Amino acid sequence: MAFVVNVLASNSNVGKTTLIVGIVKELKSRGYRIATIKHDAHDFEIDQEGKDTWKHRQAGADTVLISSKSKIALIKSTEAEAALEQLVDMVKDDVDFVIIEGYKGSSFPKIEVYRKGASERRLEVDDTFIAVATDSKEAIDDVEVVLDINNYKEIADFLINYFKRGAKC
Amino acid sequence: MAFVVNVLASNSNVGKTTLIVGIVKELKSRGYRIATIKHDAHDFEIDQEGKDTWKHRQAGADTVLISSKSKIALIKSTEAEAALEQLVDMVKDDVDFVIIEGYKGSSFPKIEVYRKGASERRLEVDDTFIAVATDSKEAIDDVEVVLDINNYKEIADFLINYFKRGAKC
Repeated sequence: MAFVVNVLASNSNVGKTTLIVGIVKELKSRGYRIATIKHDAHDFEIDQEGKDTWKHRQAGADTVLISSKSKIALIKSTEAEAALEQLVDMVKDDVDFVIIEGYKGSSFPKIEVYRKGASERRLEVDDTFIAVATDSKEAIDDVEVVLDINNYKEIADFLINYFKRGAKC
Repeated sequence: MAFVVNVLASNSNVGKTTLIVGIVKELKSRGYRIATIKHDAHDFEIDQEGKDTWKHRQAGADTVLISSKSKIALIKSTEAEAALEQLVDMVKDDVDFVIIEGYKGSSFPKIEVYRKGASERRLEVDDTFIAVATDSKEAIDDVEVVLDINNYKEIADFLINYFKRGAKC
């Protein structure tokens, strides 16, 4: 059971990854377990040419899994883009927080990242948005909570409050 | 439901990966779906420095997942080496064959790879061994089936026979 949150921005290079890295470090330092899910618009390569797992995939293996004493890696071919709900199901049982980067259409709780000078515009928010993380001083009144984008402690407190209230799936 | 088979040899560099690549290609050409599982004695690195998923893990994420239109990759930290049965459970539902490289102590059906000039010795086989794949002409009588290590068609036929007989888990 994990609290799932979706980090979004109107355009790329607003600092979603920087924010996620900051939140992960802060939550981790307080003993929580975290999964991240990232959407990739391109056809990412994660394995390294010449490794056995790479050879297995080149030969046509639909799924390859490698396991050591400290980690498991799994690469799986899909016929179409997997539904976000399915991805969340793959990771949520082992962690306290699932932090999703991207995936605009989801129904999970969302945080907008809005950075002055990098964001082209605000997102059109709806009631799935629980906060905006921003460095802007402008008045924001379409979302209940406005978080300081550089204050990971504050953002972690906000997320932990949701987790403790039992807003999990 | 998949037929699970464990490919083993007495020492490294006997050609387990070459054999697995050959079997995967042959089974794939006949329309079967395949997963491979590999044990890694070292602490493998599968992600690439600087990528967002790599940054998430560096920050402390216990699990990272990345998804595109054609594949999903998941990297998950573990406190100890995962049990083989758990790994098989992670992959078996989507495929017809699970081919495992390594993992000597398992109870899954096993094929020994024994290559003249590369194998230091035969393995001590028990009744979980269903075949030996070899290029040796010496008499082998401790296992029922002796397969030609270079004849992937014959080896695929042998495995498909098990699959069709319903020897799945």
